[in-house]
Amino acid sequence: MEVGLIGLGAMGRGMAASLRRAGHAVHVCDLRAEAVAAFVAEGGTGHATPASLAAASDVVISVVVNAAQTEAVLFGEDGAAAAMRAGACFVMCSTVAPAWSSALESRLEALDILYLDAPISGGAAKALAGEITMMTAGKPAAYACSDAVLESMAGRVFRLGNRAGTGSTVKIVNQLLAGVHIAAAAEAMALGLRAGVDARALFEVITASAGNSWMFENRMPHVLAGDYTALSAVDIFVKDLGIVLDTARATSFPLPLASTAHQMFMQASTAGYGREDDSAVIKVFPGIELPGQS
Amino acid sequence: MEVGLIGLGAMGRGMAASLRRAGHAVHVCDLRAEAVAAFVAEGGTGHATPASLAAASDVVISVVVNAAQTEAVLFGEDGAAAAMRAGACFVMCSTVAPAWSSALESRLEALDILYLDAPISGGAAKALAGEITMMTAGKPAAYACSDAVLESMAGRVFRLGNRAGTGSTVKIVNQLLAGVHIAAAAEAMALGLRAGVDARALFEVITASAGNSWMFENRMPHVLAGDYTALSAVDIFVKDLGIVLDTARATSFPLPLASTAHQMFMQASTAGYGREDDSAVIKVFPGIELPGQS
Repeated sequence: MEVGLIGLGAMGRGMAASLRRAGHAVHVCDLRAEAVAAFVAEGGTGHATPASLAAASDVVISVVVNAAQTEAVLFGEDGAAAAMRAGACFVMCSTVAPAWSSALESRLEALDILYLDAPISGGAAKALAGEITMMTAGKPAAYACSDAVLESMAGRVFRLGNRAGTGSTVKIVNQLLAGVHIAAAAEAMALGLRAGVDARALFEVITASAGNSWMFENRMPHVLAGDYTALSAVDIFVKDLGIVLDTARATSFPLPLASTAHQMFMQASTAGYGREDDSAVIKVFPGIELPGQS
Repeated sequence: MEVGLIGLGAMGRGMAASLRRAGHAVHVCDLRAEAVAAFVAEGGTGHATPASLAAASDVVISVVVNAAQTEAVLFGEDGAAAAMRAGACFVMCSTVAPAWSSALESRLEALDILYLDAPISGGAAKALAGEITMMTAGKPAAYACSDAVLESMAGRVFRLGNRAGTGSTVKIVNQLLAGVHIAAAAEAMALGLRAGVDARALFEVITASAGNSWMFENRMPHVLAGDYTALSAVDIFVKDLGIVLDTARATSFPLPLASTAHQMFMQASTAGYGREDDSAVIKVFPGIELPGQS
């Protein structure tokens, strides 16, 4: 199959490599020409615009940062939407508001383009290994068009029904938990440091106890090492928890913990840590000495 | 060894059985005579008062609900403290304020009684299997006196140093995370229900994703089944998060997520769900239909 992938960031780069390894002809496009050139050197086909890529592809996968970038990729100058083949499928992998994703399906349907709501999770290493998780929803025809492509990129494809937007809803519920758990891990570690507990001993006990979370176990080693090099940045959760809260607010639904965690990430961002690793949210706590600081 | 255990609740009952299975002579005491009689029928020795139990024991283990009950056990009418053998060790397993635990060590030292700060976690099934986790701190002499007893009850004994109170600090950090994670699991599930996502599909995705926590995986099946029979009650987290917040407040340390989660558990308690399973905190969310409700 001719597969187009737009957005060669940490996730997109690995997904494109997995697609090529699975035997697909892979077309790529990115604002950064050097990212395109690197993938072309590995055996892919580069395109200067989403329109050029779309004209050559049976499936177009978008792995950009947010809804605004997805809009630009589809409907901006030299956008993909006007150039896509009739009956081709657009696979939307960003974290976006569910209502926006649902509306996008209708807008593309009017152009005879199939649509799969397909947010992803798993990180760069899993993307490169073809083992990401996809939270998908869409019409049977969209699955029929994209199925072989999904299986080439993902270790697990959750099929959540035929209503586009459901994949995005499940993704933002996951982001709610991920964001609250990172902030809670930071709060717990901060309390332990405040009380004079050895941070490594605390980590060892918590990861063996009922207070553990995937995020505590994954992020707190960054704090123990005093290394805030961004794998995923504070500002990602400023954005993602913002989407979570906007979605809930549309029906006046209260989210006390998500809103508190969002405040903590915004506090960290405005204090100057927005581009550091999201575990840097621990820096909002005063009166403690973090490992690696002295 | 002659081992005394006070408090035959869900945890104490299993710990006493594990001690007996390991070959210790086990003395028990509980306000409920029928709980004592049941253990005596299995081969233990029953006592009517903590004082009587203490006079017969080399190690006294207290597995009561809180600091107030521990005070009563030790210093109330027919309390254990005045009756304990010189050089015997008191093992304190409740969730309490670290500063109170630290002060208790000094109070007992004046009576020539050794002290181990030793909160536990793991639940009734692990207690019965002799596989609880213990978060301990105390002087070398206290460990020397109680070591064989700890190993008979616990799958894992964390030794956190010689400052009594450190075990309690690590336990309340764990309770901070446990409480926030239960409330976050409820909030996330509530948002999914509000958005019309199938609750079982959501559970399946989250438990396979970065948003997972030990508590999400353990408690949300109660919500899916609509079964709020208390394994651990809402009011336990009203109490435990209260201890967490009091401890932090003693040094004016902010805990934004723990305080928010505490409000949610108090809201659930005052709405009438205090004795239901802690997953019933999801009932504070309006405008959703929970599984098993209709």
